[in-house]
Amino acid sequence: MNDVVCIGHAIVDVLANAGDELVAAFGIEKGTMGLVEADVGAKLYAEMGPGLEMSGGSAANTAVGVAALGGRAAFIGKVRDDQLGDVFAHDIRAAGVAFAGLPAADGPSTGRCLVLVTPDAERTMATYLGIADHVDVDEVDRALAGGTQLTYVEGYMVGIPESEAAIARAIAETRAGGGRVALTLSDPFWVQLHGDDLRALIDGGMIDVLFANEDEATGFTRQERFDDAVADLAKRVPMVTVTRGATGAIVATDGSTGAVPAAPVDRVVDTTGAGDLYAAGFLVGIARGADAETCARLGALAAAEVVSHLGARPQADLAAAARAQGLL
Amino acid sequence: MNDVVCIGHAIVDVLANAGDELVAAFGIEKGTMGLVEADVGAKLYAEMGPGLEMSGGSAANTAVGVAALGGRAAFIGKVRDDQLGDVFAHDIRAAGVAFAGLPAADGPSTGRCLVLVTPDAERTMATYLGIADHVDVDEVDRALAGGTQLTYVEGYMVGIPESEAAIARAIAETRAGGGRVALTLSDPFWVQLHGDDLRALIDGGMIDVLFANEDEATGFTRQERFDDAVADLAKRVPMVTVTRGATGAIVATDGSTGAVPAAPVDRVVDTTGAGDLYAAGFLVGIARGADAETCARLGALAAAEVVSHLGARPQADLAAAARAQGLL
Repeated sequence: MNDVVCIGHAIVDVLANAGDELVAAFGIEKGTMGLVEADVGAKLYAEMGPGLEMSGGSAANTAVGVAALGGRAAFIGKVRDDQLGDVFAHDIRAAGVAFAGLPAADGPSTGRCLVLVTPDAERTMATYLGIADHVDVDEVDRALAGGTQLTYVEGYMVGIPESEAAIARAIAETRAGGGRVALTLSDPFWVQLHGDDLRALIDGGMIDVLFANEDEATGFTRQERFDDAVADLAKRVPMVTVTRGATGAIVATDGSTGAVPAAPVDRVVDTTGAGDLYAAGFLVGIARGADAETCARLGALAAAEVVSHLGARPQADLAAAARAQGLL
Repeated sequence: MNDVVCIGHAIVDVLANAGDELVAAFGIEKGTMGLVEADVGAKLYAEMGPGLEMSGGSAANTAVGVAALGGRAAFIGKVRDDQLGDVFAHDIRAAGVAFAGLPAADGPSTGRCLVLVTPDAERTMATYLGIADHVDVDEVDRALAGGTQLTYVEGYMVGIPESEAAIARAIAETRAGGGRVALTLSDPFWVQLHGDDLRALIDGGMIDVLFANEDEATGFTRQERFDDAVADLAKRVPMVTVTRGATGAIVATDGSTGAVPAAPVDRVVDTTGAGDLYAAGFLVGIARGADAETCARLGALAAAEVVSHLGARPQADLAAAARAQGLL
């Protein structure tokens, strides 16, 4: 039985430090993610400085975080049989995550995400999805064959026709097996573009745990005030947690709302993966039966580690850190 | 006119932190580089932890270092038209190095090097050369068409039949244009394997500047004592510089020998690229007409930067750092 099965885009990140001028030239609002076609991606890549390639993908990062905290994690996503596909599959397995994905022999190449990290540690992303949204229902079945406590759905997958069947199957199988379904709203722009699809899932009663950041929460609910947005979400989903960067996070569940501060970080280097790792910690907490505050503290601990270095996957022993703080 | 044209293997590094047990399992002596076939490379990769991909290649790192110090640099090497080939070509050009290499449409894939970084910051490398040693003579001609003050030859290319014609052409064209030729002995194991080929170049009077580290110098000369090894090399080549890690470097030229200390480093993280960047600084010094001590100090400055972080290419503004110290 898995603790957490994550479904999302299998992506290799290409990270480079950049100035605000380059972010502006990319035409993507700073701090958000934009999708690009292959030709535009190639053009933007040519404008970037020397890069560093690391496996990424939002829900994939979360799966790695779950494993780093000692949880049993699996990932559902699609790669091609190309070099970056090899890199993705190697890295996620080497991190201790079960990945039963079979690389496609044809079709678009493995997805990649150009990540511009500005001196303020903010990241702006241009993603070429490639084959990442062509997730087979068979892969969902393989990953969920052993059952799972939780399935975590990447919001970036919701609203893409190619992913629809896989998402529906993952949710149905999880619930049929008695598991719970978590969803992240992923990105404020995604919420603008695909809010209706996300709302259909949430208001259709498919989601047990909802993750969002402040901009996503206000954008999704069309509430101007943060507290109103949280209250609105809490009416729709049994458990909601909203992150606010350095301010910390809010958890609303069972009619009550609590706040947990962000964990201290010596120096924020790169915020890529902060939300993904918060989700990892939170989900591990749920799987262990922890209370809401402990879940949020586990999330804050994992997020603090990942923002302290370049790249969206943990480099430290998160389980040991969590045990040292009495959270595991 | 280029300051420095570098010829060597176009390689993408796959870096991972590792313990000594994994280094032992790789079957490669710690601190050295071993060549592996594609199947062995795949097997070793499967044993490694999650990786981080960055462009590398010894002489390519040197070319990037030359550019980072404000020198006009070009690189000669071979990639395939695959994803890692794109990464290599993008990164070296984005670093300001002229790279006229045309990606091959068939043949083996772009070369890659598995780099295990142990907690002592030492690196041990398993390289799958792929197409990297198939350097065309045409590419040499294109890179050298505008002339160069110096051509730097990666020792790893010497002794490989596929590279022989390209190396010979690069040396002949450089000398015909009034330029000088520099060579690095690259690796103590390479010196053991291909000492005769390296000796043929050096004792054939083809080399004006020779780079080596301590183990390569003693191995090549078969002298047990370091001073004897330096004296032996100084008889063969007009200018010799031998690095000794944290101890600093020795320069022997015009009948005299001087020592330069290593530049201070707060914390040595990863020694990959230390020798490559020392060569970059030293070569920029020669190109600027600096004295031997200044050349070595430029080398020490560039090497100190590259060992302070993961990866074999500079991340700081080396030219500004060198100017601040009055070296440029």
